[in-house]
Amino acid sequence: MTTEDDQTTDRPVPRVPKGFRDLTAADVVARRKMLNTISDVYERFGFEPLETPALEFVDALGKFLPESDTPAGGVFSLRDDDSRWVALRYDLTAPLSRFYAQNVNRLTSPYRRYQISPVWRQEKPGPGRFREFYQCDFDTVGTESMVADAEICAVATTCFEALGIDRGNYIVRVNNRKVLNGVLDVIQLPEDSETGHTRLTVLRAIDKLDRLGVKGVRQLLGKGRLDESGDFTQGAGLGSEQIDTVLGYLEATAENRSSVCQRLRELVGNSEVGLEGVRELEEIHELLEAMALGEDQVIFDPSVVRGLAYYTGPVVEAVLTFAAEEDGEKKEFGSVLGGGRYDDLVKRFTGSRIPATGGSIGVDRLLAALKTLERLDTEASQQPVVITIFERDRMADYQRMASELRSAGIAAELYLGSKGFRQQLKYADRRSAPVAVLCGSNEFESGEVTLKDLVLGSKLSKEIKDREEWKAQPAQISVPRAELVAGVRQLLERHQ
Amino acid sequence: MTTEDDQTTDRPVPRVPKGFRDLTAADVVARRKMLNTISDVYERFGFEPLETPALEFVDALGKFLPESDTPAGGVFSLRDDDSRWVALRYDLTAPLSRFYAQNVNRLTSPYRRYQISPVWRQEKPGPGRFREFYQCDFDTVGTESMVADAEICAVATTCFEALGIDRGNYIVRVNNRKVLNGVLDVIQLPEDSETGHTRLTVLRAIDKLDRLGVKGVRQLLGKGRLDESGDFTQGAGLGSEQIDTVLGYLEATAENRSSVCQRLRELVGNSEVGLEGVRELEEIHELLEAMALGEDQVIFDPSVVRGLAYYTGPVVEAVLTFAAEEDGEKKEFGSVLGGGRYDDLVKRFTGSRIPATGGSIGVDRLLAALKTLERLDTEASQQPVVITIFERDRMADYQRMASELRSAGIAAELYLGSKGFRQQLKYADRRSAPVAVLCGSNEFESGEVTLKDLVLGSKLSKEIKDREEWKAQPAQISVPRAELVAGVRQLLERHQ
Repeated sequence: MTTEDDQTTDRPVPRVPKGFRDLTAADVVARRKMLNTISDVYERFGFEPLETPALEFVDALGKFLPESDTPAGGVFSLRDDDSRWVALRYDLTAPLSRFYAQNVNRLTSPYRRYQISPVWRQEKPGPGRFREFYQCDFDTVGTESMVADAEICAVATTCFEALGIDRGNYIVRVNNRKVLNGVLDVIQLPEDSETGHTRLTVLRAIDKLDRLGVKGVRQLLGKGRLDESGDFTQGAGLGSEQIDTVLGYLEATAENRSSVCQRLRELVGNSEVGLEGVRELEEIHELLEAMALGEDQVIFDPSVVRGLAYYTGPVVEAVLTFAAEEDGEKKEFGSVLGGGRYDDLVKRFTGSRIPATGGSIGVDRLLAALKTLERLDTEASQQPVVITIFERDRMADYQRMASELRSAGIAAELYLGSKGFRQQLKYADRRSAPVAVLCGSNEFESGEVTLKDLVLGSKLSKEIKDREEWKAQPAQISVPRAELVAGVRQLLERHQ
Repeated sequence: MTTEDDQTTDRPVPRVPKGFRDLTAADVVARRKMLNTISDVYERFGFEPLETPALEFVDALGKFLPESDTPAGGVFSLRDDDSRWVALRYDLTAPLSRFYAQNVNRLTSPYRRYQISPVWRQEKPGPGRFREFYQCDFDTVGTESMVADAEICAVATTCFEALGIDRGNYIVRVNNRKVLNGVLDVIQLPEDSETGHTRLTVLRAIDKLDRLGVKGVRQLLGKGRLDESGDFTQGAGLGSEQIDTVLGYLEATAENRSSVCQRLRELVGNSEVGLEGVRELEEIHELLEAMALGEDQVIFDPSVVRGLAYYTGPVVEAVLTFAAEEDGEKKEFGSVLGGGRYDDLVKRFTGSRIPATGGSIGVDRLLAALKTLERLDTEASQQPVVITIFERDRMADYQRMASELRSAGIAAELYLGSKGFRQQLKYADRRSAPVAVLCGSNEFESGEVTLKDLVLGSKLSKEIKDREEWKAQPAQISVPRAELVAGVRQLLERHQ
């Protein structure tokens, strides 16, 4: 305990918890504009908005540790005032499942919703990895139709292009879990059960193709793999012929989607689930054609697994095909959209199987990519005109100016600090003010105001060679006080 | 422990924690539109956006119980993986203080920010009272200028009118804590200290004027008050002459702001702080006049206290002056904006006094009010056109239609369920689809599509008498397949 006088030790340090951050104006604006674009696309595809609470019961999130009474790590959980475990939502899919199960009788069938909300994960933070981040999910619940799966691809390409990531700068990769299951049928691998889950181990191995290459995956499909640090990962224990078949499947790419389907049809042999998977891909291909989505936008790629065990049919992921240059190193953005069909998720609540499929866009990676492309729009709809103060006993007169500008729909503010004129202009500059209004005793006397075009001023100081060009448009003009709004508008329109 | 077969008991109940709720499409849209309007106004006044994290260190929130190691009730708090107490933000002012203290050297001075974010409070929920709700705060940090205080009023009136709450349906009430302090000087009440806080007790008593009336406040200023349930509230212990002076102050209203200032000047006598408070109100009045804010929009009202102890100067609150009719009873909406000057809040971190002032709009109450006024805009920018399905083997053809409509900027979706035509139309109705596209084998053969104007259809079924009027605009038209987009657009434009 500290005494009342010992004030210094009582003062908290102003900081945010590990993995959290403040977003200031430019970041808030850029993210808001991106999210608006994404939600416009979602709505154009017929998804309607939903907002679930930040806190859910831990059992509804499915985040209790197996055979345990405490929530799994990774979720921020606490006991509420009724001593019940609640937690901050970890993703938007579990709340959707809970919501759908709770309201199934009131909802349309199918139910198409999107949700754009922050989620929280108590995981190791790192560069670009935060404990609070936005997810943008869109899902169709209650349909078996491959239209819903094909549309995941269309939502992706439409979002990217609406955000300024052009065709050629992204690729959407599609696969079907059922085809892989068919291949595993062909090599006579038993289904996962309580006692063994070889198929899940095979999935995990395949999912590492990007990182470990064919050699690493071969080891993980076989006896196991010793990594550079000396750690050993137990393998799936497949024989060499089985491994060859699986690797052959992973490499079954081809020049176009139809050819991939043909090769896959050969690989799955007589497996019923495998053939069903191929038929689904063929149907998706036909739907993609109908939506005019070319081979340079959406490909079929057997190596796409998507880690989550719950996917049961088509899986989709989208990657950006350009990289950022950072300290001379190429930095890939990785997957910016992931999704697929997960027919069993609502079952946890209702006991009955409800087919569902959807995707999720990763906001932070997309924002970083847009920054690299210089397509990030961080400008507020309008930065304020700053009215500088010369005569402190005439605040009401300055206030009247601000009020007139605002009434005309122009953002404006008085300089409210105590500093002199140069500092006031510096303030206006830091606010990115397009125009400063100057009105001292001379102006008050002559019934005029001086308007300073700060955008032009900044251009003039940067590009001396343009001076000639701009001579006709002086950076500073005087207008009668009664024409303040018209004068400001004239300067604003110069730069639109 | 349950066995694998005992599945029913394993299933979680789908529900949300007490005091939380899901917002479905209409609610999300209405709130989003309201928040957009509010943030537009905030930006027009020169406030820039800020988003702080949902979780803060409890000590930064100032929410540790006095002389205790555990956080106060009312906040949702937990220990993070470093065993440090963190909590969901309780309001947006404490995070602003933390942010400002942390970044004071990088920020402009003054710093004007707004934040529109959810906050969480573990308090007793009730009708219209939730544990997760939005706040919309705007604050100016780093200025003594009364302009910032007067602008709280202007932000309020501009927001209300932009939302469709007209002049006459709201009133902004302004007071100044300094004037009250002046009155307490006049009756020679000692300043609050560690050993006594009579002034705070007086404030609390005054704050109950609305609820308890003059008689109740008189008791609370004196010896105390016994309420109907038999509970006794200790009073401030003032003498009857002192009480008369305080009550005289509370009733010092007048026909206009200037007259109130005059009466207050008489009441504060020679009190320095009191006179300063009156001068500030006079300055605010002059600034309100400059902003053309009339006596029917902003009044000076000595009975406004605003509960929070931290206010140090002008205080502002706005109320709606109409009531909702609910089950035959009038229901007041109460205060929809509160704010004022709180010069000491940043001091907790930095040790130095930083003047600040701002306001906060209560979203839920405003939404309820807009609903009453029938000014709530719940329509998504566009509900989807629903393409009904007759020929299940021609999904690609239907998909092409959706794709064409979407490319033209028209929201559209295929019906993805398995039901027949009547159910499909019912689905379209529940989605509030403006148009349904019908295309069966006949249409495919003749190269046409049928378009059903569902808005008109709904009007026709409701208002039979209008049939004549609408004869020229049939609810169902046929257009060549190639003119699908033009045909749909034509129907959409009917109802704009």
